[in-house]
Formats: sequence, structure tokens, C-alpha cells
Amino acid sequence: MSRLLLLSSSRSGSTGYLDHAQPLIADFLGDNPKPVKRVLFIPFAGVGKTFDIYLEQVRPTFDAQGLEVEGIHQAADPKAAVRDAEAIVVGGGNTFALVKRLYDADLLDTIRQCVANGTPYIGWSAGSNIAGPTLCTTNDMPIVEPPSFSTLALVPFQINPHFIAGKPEGHNGESREERLEEYLALNPHALVVALREGTALSREGHSLRLLGELDGLTFSANGQQALAANSRLDHLLTPY
Amino acid sequence: MSRLLLLSSSRSGSTGYLDHAQPLIADFLGDNPKPVKRVLFIPFAGVGKTFDIYLEQVRPTFDAQGLEVEGIHQAADPKAAVRDAEAIVVGGGNTFALVKRLYDADLLDTIRQCVANGTPYIGWSAGSNIAGPTLCTTNDMPIVEPPSFSTLALVPFQINPHFIAGKPEGHNGESREERLEEYLALNPHALVVALREGTALSREGHSLRLLGELDGLTFSANGQQALAANSRLDHLLTPY
Repeated sequence: MSRLLLLSSSRSGSTGYLDHAQPLIADFLGDNPKPVKRVLFIPFAGVGKTFDIYLEQVRPTFDAQGLEVEGIHQAADPKAAVRDAEAIVVGGGNTFALVKRLYDADLLDTIRQCVANGTPYIGWSAGSNIAGPTLCTTNDMPIVEPPSFSTLALVPFQINPHFIAGKPEGHNGESREERLEEYLALNPHALVVALREGTALSREGHSLRLLGELDGLTFSANGQQALAANSRLDHLLTPY
Repeated sequence: MSRLLLLSSSRSGSTGYLDHAQPLIADFLGDNPKPVKRVLFIPFAGVGKTFDIYLEQVRPTFDAQGLEVEGIHQAADPKAAVRDAEAIVVGGGNTFALVKRLYDADLLDTIRQCVANGTPYIGWSAGSNIAGPTLCTTNDMPIVEPPSFSTLALVPFQINPHFIAGKPEGHNGESREERLEEYLALNPHALVVALREGTALSREGHSLRLLGELDGLTFSANGQQALAANSRLDHLLTPY
């Protein structure tokens, strides 16, 4: 049974790093059928900081819950580290860097299999984006070229993290809504779940829920639909 | 001798579509050694509108200069249309869609050769972005997967169109500067020229100039540098 916690962002408004995420992570791991004492952190989305520094940045969040954290970059055998993980945690940063490094280390299939077999998966930002079938609804700059845009497909819909409506005044770039409409123009059968900062999806097998204080949105060829805060979204897991 | 006019955007502030571009295009084509009567428009970046509609959207700008416009999508032989073009015009939209469609039609080499042989090239937004060696500094969402991130390399540096400093308040996405710093962290030998809306680069062989009322910026491993409005930038064309 797949268990996923997909957070939009590492911060909510002006709160500290992973502050809003900590209770959600504690609940999610606390509910796991097998007790979790140790998590595997995948820092591959990190750019402009070392993986060690990124690991230290997330450690306090897990420390506070009495959890050990291992960085996959320190593992002698990264695939074995994924297979042995009690929980997989994929941090945010740049989605293209994350996907390229996951392909370079040939880890996508292993992660997919472990999650299918019940290893809980936690992601935020880029780490949530790659839980969809492709990276096509990332907000990130394509700073490196991954071998493919295909990602983990742990859920059957696309995820757009850090969702924000509208655009800065006086600038002629597209709004987020316009970008997602463009995605749908070329991918008319897709469904996109847009997650505002501070919100998250949690999946427990066939059950899906929106967490957090804000509503969410879906985008599809049928238009936009609001997702109520804290509502059940199981229907998004069935083929559409 | 390569002749390029690379506009940041189709609009400057709240002006109308291509309004600010029209005098720049008129000057650029007016200076061409061979008189230009007819331009070839490549609408492949357009998404959510037909290529015909996009062609009609740009036609008035060229009409006003007594120029005919042909859409490459209406050409029986698109490669021949590029080879026969008196000027090549690549409009904005989504960079990934543009690059995928250029690869699908196998047009990159043909465009590159024609520009090397003197066919003037005009681009805005995505059409300027692809004048660099890769699409890696686009701002666009990766809504489709092109076979490669390599683009035309009509200039030796990356272009970031629609440059805007900072980020919306209360949101935790990256600023444009942070995005470009991330690009440089993984591509430390690259140079990025950031073009504010309303500005453009014009290249005449070994001469390069920033056009428009605003300054520009370069980003490299050595940090940011301002480019004065209307300054000569020939040094950016030499290997660094």
C-alpha cells in the first residue's frame, strides 16, 4: 500500500525551514504500520550547497521527532540504501537537477518499487513534483538536461507545487494559471493538482487527502476546480 | 556575417503587442545589405492558439513596414522556406514547444546555416532564448519534452529574456537571480545575458549592442555585472 506525504513547499509564508511540515511529517510517520526510527534523505535537488550541508539543514526537523537521518550521498550502495530505507525523504531544490541525478544513479525504479511495497515517501517542492508521472509542471528553471522528463508516477496526476495565482504587476511573463493552461493545451488528457504553499497531499493506498489550511486547485481540459482544505480526494487516484 | 535582433519580450510594460519592437525591427531590416520585402515567421512557440492565428497576430507589425509575412507552417517545404527566407522571425511563447517543433521539423541546422550566411534573424522571448547555446535559461514551464536542450548557438552566451529582479512578497519560490545562480552552480563556465522587458540585443557580425531604455545584466561565476543601456557589448562575443 502506497503511503505518500507530498508537501508543496519547505516553508509556509514566513515560517522557518520545514516548521509547518514537522507536525505533518510526525503524524505521517507515526501512522506507519512499521515503526520508523530512521529516514533516508535524498538531497539531489540541492544546488549551490553541498549534499552534506543540505543534510544538516534537514536534520533538526527529524531530530526533533527522535528520528535518525541518513543521506543517500553517504551510502556506499545507494540502491541498497533505498531498498533498506524505513522511509524515503526527497527534499526540494531544482527539479531538473533532482531528476538528472536520480537517473544518473539509476534510482527511479528502485524508489517506485519500494514505495509500491509500502516504504513511506515524503517529498516537498521538487520532491513532490517528481511523485507525478512527469516533471512537466515544475516551476523550476531547466538548468541541466535530464535523460527523460518521466518521473516516479506515484500518483496518476501532475503536481504543481508552490502554486500562486496571478503575476507581478507590470511584467509580461505568464501567470501560473496561464502556464498550466499551456501545459494542458499540449497534454489535454492530463490532470494537474496545484498545491499552495503550506499545503500537502497525503496518500494512504486508495485514500488521498489535502492537508493544510488553504484550498487547492485542479486544472484539466474541463477547467479549474477548487479542492476544499482538508477534503478527501480519493477520486483523483482513479483513472479519468 | 550574422545579423541578429534578439528582443526580450513582445511587450514593454503596458504597451501594445510588438509596439516597442516595431521601430527596432524597422531599423534592423532597413540596415540589411540585401533589401528585405518578405519575412518568414516561425510560430512554433505558440501554444493554445493556432499557428494561423499567431501569424495574423504579428502581421500588422510587418504590414506597417510594408513587409509581407509568410508562416512556415503554411510552407510546402519548411526547410526550403528557411533557405529562401529574406529574414527569419521567431516569435515568443513556450520555449520547450518551440524547440521540440524545430527538432521535429529538423530545422535547427538549416536556420543556423542560413544565419551564418547572412539571413537576418529576429526573435523575441522564446525566439531570443533559442539564439543561445541551450534553452537552460528559459523561464518557461517544460510542458513538452524536446529531444535535446541544445539550441541555435547564434551567440556564445545564454539569454534570459523577461528579466525581472526579486520575487513576489510572501512566496517562497526562487527569484530570477537565484534561478540564474543555480544555473551557474551547475554550469560554471557559462555566461548569461539577462534582458529586461523592452530591451534587445542587436548583433552585426563581431559587433553587439544593447538596445532599449533599460540596462541589462550579465551573470557568470564571477558574479553579476550591469550592462549600460545602449552600450557596445562586442566583448561578449569572444570566448571567455
